[in-house]
Formats: sequence, structure tokens, C-alpha cells
Amino acid sequence: MTRIVFVLFPGVTQLDMTGPAQFLSRLPGSTTIVAAPSADAVRTDCGFALVPAAAFADTPQADILCVPGGHGVADALECNETIDFIRRQAAGAKWVTSVCTGAFLLGRAGLLEGKRATTHWAYAHLLERVGAMHEPGRVVEDGQTITAGGVTAGIDFALTLIAREAGEDWAKAIQLSLEYDPHPPFDAGTPVAAGAARTEALKARVYTAAAERMAEALKRSQ
Amino acid sequence: MTRIVFVLFPGVTQLDMTGPAQFLSRLPGSTTIVAAPSADAVRTDCGFALVPAAAFADTPQADILCVPGGHGVADALECNETIDFIRRQAAGAKWVTSVCTGAFLLGRAGLLEGKRATTHWAYAHLLERVGAMHEPGRVVEDGQTITAGGVTAGIDFALTLIAREAGEDWAKAIQLSLEYDPHPPFDAGTPVAAGAARTEALKARVYTAAAERMAEALKRSQ
Repeated sequence: MTRIVFVLFPGVTQLDMTGPAQFLSRLPGSTTIVAAPSADAVRTDCGFALVPAAAFADTPQADILCVPGGHGVADALECNETIDFIRRQAAGAKWVTSVCTGAFLLGRAGLLEGKRATTHWAYAHLLERVGAMHEPGRVVEDGQTITAGGVTAGIDFALTLIAREAGEDWAKAIQLSLEYDPHPPFDAGTPVAAGAARTEALKARVYTAAAERMAEALKRSQ
Repeated sequence: MTRIVFVLFPGVTQLDMTGPAQFLSRLPGSTTIVAAPSADAVRTDCGFALVPAAAFADTPQADILCVPGGHGVADALECNETIDFIRRQAAGAKWVTSVCTGAFLLGRAGLLEGKRATTHWAYAHLLERVGAMHEPGRVVEDGQTITAGGVTAGIDFALTLIAREAGEDWAKAIQLSLEYDPHPPFDAGTPVAAGAARTEALKARVYTAAAERMAEALKRSQ
């Protein structure tokens, strides 16, 4: 039985976790466990709360450890219980993975030192602060460490990992079952595609301040 | 304030809801409410439960009504409380929408009569049972009714709807913020791309029986 453990914390971007969870939970012979500091429900920004299956203390050793991101990462960086859980689980896991800014939680736990890694585009310049080398890409593999780009990159990561674990035939069957034949109505999913003006406007509205908060949290927590 | 209401029921395929919710919740001037028959948490197949924000009886009128699908639809078709809620909300909503097999819940509520619609590929042949005309496509618009194909099609639907409500500039900014530049590692997201052998194998393993259960539930509930 392959144990897949997701790490949940307040302020998670829920699709960072729910996207990969939908795909990875169909890995044959697997069980998916969402773990959080306590068994209490965690509110999301999307009109619902998520109830973990287990508190950290009751979570068995993962084969696949997956750490999502979100604006709550800046606070989670300073939560020793969460960082200790990630470090302890990673030591015994076969695959250590992150989606979006979850990479900084791996990094804070010392797991990206000297590794090639990716994260959400607006935070990529901060990867060196946790000892990682930024490699542009939606899914970046370095040995048994896999990091994914922002939010929806988690789905491409999940299919990649399913193929590693169970083979391409299983990955393709799961892709078909979830009808993953994406056709975005617009081409604006990267800074290059969106263009400089649109990217700068979004940074001014959200990400310049968010990346500064992340940088400060990284400094405080080290 | 634009009110977005998602309908939750046991056995929902969580990504049908969580994908569109992540995108639609960033629609400017909107609030997202996940509603369920009661305020109790609903377990998913992915190692966590979802807690609705409101029971049906306490849910205000939606501007955008969104009904996800999943294997639980067959049971939800026979839940009068759920069907009545959908019918009542749809009467006052600006947009009436579904993802995946959520189309059959719209149909059971009488909302697809004479309309072009889509659903998960494995159930498309059943759309005529609720009076709809199947139109192949990942996102199908017929007036104020929008139906999306299986699971991940909900993300393309959400961006389409954001553009209708708030304009393409907002849709593109949200696409950039969620880094929606999909690069599936394989091309197997439709029956045509996956090929006949792979599709028939998946039908034999899952979907022939699942579509029969849906057909029987439609018959019983009409």
C-alpha cells in the first residue's frame, strides 16, 4: 500500500492540494491521508473548510509526501510543528514533493539544499534563500524530490508522479477518467504569455507585497 | 456582490467543485458559498472531508449556481431536497452551470430540456434522457446555461464564465495568478486521444457499470 500524505495548514491554496489529491488518490494500491497540526477543520478562501483525516501526531509514515502552498505558507514557515513534521516524514519517504509555494516549506525543513526546484512564478527569485537553484519549469525533478510550479501545475506533477510509480498506462487511464484535455480559453498562464504589462499590474496588486512577506518570514524563521 | 453557490452532496468528485471554486472565488466583487443538505462535513474519496458554509435552508439566492458531479450523483438524483434546491436556486440565478455528471442533476430538475449540453464522456449518451441535446465540447453554452465536460473541464468553464462576468482582462489575470498553463505529460484526456483499446478497458473497469447505475437512477427518479 502506497501512503500519500498531504500537509494542510491555514491559508493553503486549496487547489494546490485538491488537484493533485484527485489524481494521486487514483494511484492503484494507494491511500491518501490529509494531515494537519490538529484534527480541526481548516477554512479555505473558497467558501468551505477542509477536515484533515489525521493530526500530525497520528499520521503514519508517508511513501509520497506532498506539501501544497498558498498565502498561509508565510505563517507556516514559523510553525515548528509543521516544519518538524515535514522534515521527519521526508526522512522516510520515497518521494518528497511540493506544489506552488509549498517549496519554501520543504526548503525551510532543509530539503532543497543544492537541489534544482521550481515554485509559483512570483516567488521563484526567493528559492535561493533556501539553498535551491531555480529551474524554470512546471514540474522539476531532482532525484526523489519533485517540485511543481504555481497551483494548477500540481495536476501535471501528479500525472508525472503516477507514471513514475505505476507506469504510463495507469497515468493515461487516470488522465482519461478525469478528462484532462485542457483547453484554456486564453493564453495567459505565464508571465511571458500574459505579457509584461499584465504581469506588472498583478504584481503591483498582489505579488510584490506577498513575495516581500515570504522573504521576511524566511528571514525570521532561519 | 455576485453570489456563487456550489451544491455539495455525498460522493461528489471533489475536483469538479474545488477547481472551479479556486478560479471563481477570485471573481471581483464575489462571494463563494458551498451549500449542502445539512451543515455536516461530507467525506470525499481523497482523504479529507469538506465542510459546507451553509445548509440549503440557510443559503441565499445565487447569481451563479454551480452543480458538480461524481459517482454520488446517482444517489443525489433521488434526493428531493437536493433537486428542489437546485430548481429553486436556478429560477433566480443569472447563470445555471454544471461540471461533469452534475449535468444530470440540472436535467433532473428540468433545467436542460431542449438545451445543448455536455458532461463526462462516459455519460454523454444519457443526456437525451433528461431532454438535452449532447454537444461535444469541453464547455457548452446555451443561453445562461453552461455545462462542462468531465472533472478538469470545470477549470476551463470557470475561466470562460469569469470572462463573461468580468471581462477578459480579469480572466487573464486570474489565469496568471493560478499559473494555468497546462502541460499534460501525456495526451490521453479524451477517448479519441487515448485510443479505443484504452477507452474500452476503462469502460470495462469503471464506466460501463457506472453509466448503467446512472441510467437506472434516472429511470427511478423520473
